[in-house]
Amino acid sequence: MYPRLATRAEATVFTMVLTRGPVTRVEIARRSGLSSAAVTKAARPFIEAGYLEELQATERTTPGAGRPASPLTIRAQREFFTGVKITDDELIGVVTDLRAQPLVSARHPLDTMSPEGVLAALADLVAELLAADPAYRERCHWLGLAVSGDVDQVHGMVRYSPFLGWRQVPLARLAAEATGLNVTVENDVKSLTVAEQWFGEGVGASSFALVTVGTGIGCGLVVNDRVVPGWNGVAGEIGHIPVGGDEPECHCGGRGCVEAIAGAAPIVAAVRAATGDASLSIDAAIDVAHAGNTAAREVFARAGHAIGLGMAAMANLVGPERIIVTGDVQGLAAYDLFEEQINRSFTSQAFGAAADCRLLLRPRSFEQWARGAAAVAIQTHFSLQER
Amino acid sequence: MYPRLATRAEATVFTMVLTRGPVTRVEIARRSGLSSAAVTKAARPFIEAGYLEELQATERTTPGAGRPASPLTIRAQREFFTGVKITDDELIGVVTDLRAQPLVSARHPLDTMSPEGVLAALADLVAELLAADPAYRERCHWLGLAVSGDVDQVHGMVRYSPFLGWRQVPLARLAAEATGLNVTVENDVKSLTVAEQWFGEGVGASSFALVTVGTGIGCGLVVNDRVVPGWNGVAGEIGHIPVGGDEPECHCGGRGCVEAIAGAAPIVAAVRAATGDASLSIDAAIDVAHAGNTAAREVFARAGHAIGLGMAAMANLVGPERIIVTGDVQGLAAYDLFEEQINRSFTSQAFGAAADCRLLLRPRSFEQWARGAAAVAIQTHFSLQER
Repeated sequence: MYPRLATRAEATVFTMVLTRGPVTRVEIARRSGLSSAAVTKAARPFIEAGYLEELQATERTTPGAGRPASPLTIRAQREFFTGVKITDDELIGVVTDLRAQPLVSARHPLDTMSPEGVLAALADLVAELLAADPAYRERCHWLGLAVSGDVDQVHGMVRYSPFLGWRQVPLARLAAEATGLNVTVENDVKSLTVAEQWFGEGVGASSFALVTVGTGIGCGLVVNDRVVPGWNGVAGEIGHIPVGGDEPECHCGGRGCVEAIAGAAPIVAAVRAATGDASLSIDAAIDVAHAGNTAAREVFARAGHAIGLGMAAMANLVGPERIIVTGDVQGLAAYDLFEEQINRSFTSQAFGAAADCRLLLRPRSFEQWARGAAAVAIQTHFSLQER
Repeated sequence: MYPRLATRAEATVFTMVLTRGPVTRVEIARRSGLSSAAVTKAARPFIEAGYLEELQATERTTPGAGRPASPLTIRAQREFFTGVKITDDELIGVVTDLRAQPLVSARHPLDTMSPEGVLAALADLVAELLAADPAYRERCHWLGLAVSGDVDQVHGMVRYSPFLGWRQVPLARLAAEATGLNVTVENDVKSLTVAEQWFGEGVGASSFALVTVGTGIGCGLVVNDRVVPGWNGVAGEIGHIPVGGDEPECHCGGRGCVEAIAGAAPIVAAVRAATGDASLSIDAAIDVAHAGNTAAREVFARAGHAIGLGMAAMANLVGPERIIVTGDVQGLAAYDLFEEQINRSFTSQAFGAAADCRLLLRPRSFEQWARGAAAVAIQTHFSLQER
C-alpha cells in the first residue's frame, strides 16, 4: 500500500518534506545532518510509491556546481484522512489530504450520548464523507477522533470525558469495528496542537503553546519537539491555575482558577449580576459589552486579566517560543473584549525574556477541531515505531 | 582515552548501565527494544576501555536456557568529574565518580565577584580538589559549573546572573583556559535536575519536577525524558506564578508571585511585622515559629499555601510523574512549618489525576549543588552528538 517508515532517516526526510516542503535534498541534508546520499536513498521509496515527487528545478545551489536542485514536494492527494470531533450534541467530520487540508466536511447531530448511538452515527458520517469522492474510499485508511477529556492515546481509550459522560470506553477498537478504518483517539486540545505542530503556526518551533478560549480555557503544549502528554493524561490545564487569590470557587474543587473567572459560565453570571438581567445568554452578554455597557465590559476585562496571568504562569514555567491563541465561536467573538487586558497582564507577569514570546491570534472554525483529529492520524501513521 | 559514543545503540546501552545498572543484557534488550546481539556489540568497546564490566553471574534467566545472565555494571572510578557551584560569596566544589557520587569536596571564599577574580579562585579550587588523589589528576577531564540565573548552556555563556552581577560572560571558554579541562556551564536548578534525572529520584520517570525552597522558590522540569530548556533560557519560574491575586508586589515587576509570599525576604518581613521585632533574621524567624509563636507560624503557613498552589499550577500544566522537593539550609530548616499547608493546598488545587503525583521531600546538602554541576558534565560527555 505504501512504504513503511523503516529507518530514522526515512522518517526524518518524509516528515520534513510533508511539514516544510517543497524543500531541496541539499536543504534537507543541511537541516537534518544526514548525508546527501542518505537523503536521496531515504526519499526514493516514497517517490516510487507516489508520495513524493520532484518539482521542476528552478535554481542551481551553487553556480556551475553541477545538477540544479530539484525540490521535493508532497503529492498531497496520494492518501486521504478522515477526522471527526465528537461534541455533546453533534459529530463534525472532515476528509483531508496528506497535509491535513480539509477537502470536504459534514456534520451529524447526536440524539444520544451512549457509545453505541455515537458509534452508529459515526459510521453514517464516515460513509457520507467517503462517498463524496471515489478516491476517498480507495485511498483513505485512517480515522482520527478527537474527544474532550482524559484520553489514553496509546490504547485508544477514553478514560473519562465529563462532557460525554463516558468512562473507560475503548473507542479506537469500537470505531475500527464500526468503520473498517485504522483509528486514533486523542484529546481535542492536544489534537489541535498536533495540527499546529505539523501543519500550522508551530512548524519550526521546538516549543510552543496553544491556548483555547471559550466555554473553558484549555492549553496544549509542545516541549522539546513533542506534545506534552502529562502523567495520567493531565497536562495543559491552564484553566485551573489559581490566579484569583482564594476566589472564586471553581467546579474543579480548587479556588481562583482562570476558568472560574474567564469561562463562559462565570462571565454570563457576572454580566447578569452587573446588568440585572437574569436571562442573558453568553451571546447576549457579548452584545451588551460590545454595545458599550461599562459594567459588562469590566467583566470581560477581568476575564482577560485572568487569562493573561494564566498565560504568563504557563510561559514562566515552560518557556514556549510562541503562544497561539484560538477558541470557539463565542470565545473569538468576545476576543476584542479580552485582548487588551490579556496582552497587558501577560506582559506584566511574564518573567524576564518570557515576555518576548510571540502571541499569535488565530481564529479557527469548528471544522478545525476535526482537522486536528485527522492530523493526529497522519502523525501516528507517519511516525517511526522505534524498536 | 575512551570510546566515543558512535551510535544510538551505544548511547542507549551505556546510559542504561550508568543510570540503572547493574543490569543484564537481556533486561537492556527488553527495555530498549534492541536485539541481544546489538546490546552485546554496543557494550563491547566500553568493556574493553574499562568503563563497564560483567558481574559474576547470579541466576539463569530461564532454567536450563543456556548461559547464565551476567549483569553489566559501571566501573565508577574509571573516570572522574569536577563540579563547582558558584555562589555570591564562595565556590563549592566536588570531585565525583562516573555516577556523580562525591568523593571529596572543598570550598573557596570569594572576596570579589569579578569574572577574573572568580576564575582565579576557581583555578585554585580545582587544583586543590584534583590534588587530593593522583587518579583524579590523571582521569578527570571535565569540569561542570553551576550558576544561578540565565545560562546559555550550548555556548557556555552566562547571559545574566543577578546574584553575581554578570552579563554575557563566556564562562565555559574562560574556565577551560583557567583549568585546562573541558567545561560545561548550566543554571544551578537545572543542574540539580540533571543529577536527579540520571542519578536520583528522577530515574525511570519520563517527567518529573524538582522544586527548591529557600531564599527563592525554583523549579527544574523534565518532560518527555529531557530537561525543559525554555525559549531564551526561561523555564521553571514557579516562584513567579501569580497565586496571591493582585498582592503583594514582587521584585520581578509582577504581583502575587509565590516568591513574593514564600521567599525568605517576605517571610522575614512578615514575621518582623507580626512580632514587632524589626531585627529578626530568617534563622531567628524560624526559631520564633518553632517556639510556637502563632503569628509567626501563620506567616509560614501562608507561605506553604503559596508554594502548594504554585506546585499545583505546575502539575496542572505539565503533569509530572513525581515532584521532588528540596531546598537550601533555611528552606529545609523551615520545611516542617510549611509542609502541612503545602500538601493541603497542592491537593486541593491539583486537577483530577494530577493530585496523584508523588511528592518526595529530599534534603540536599549544599555540596549537592556542586554535584549537580558534575552531573551536567557527565551527561554532556556521554550524550550522543547527533548528526
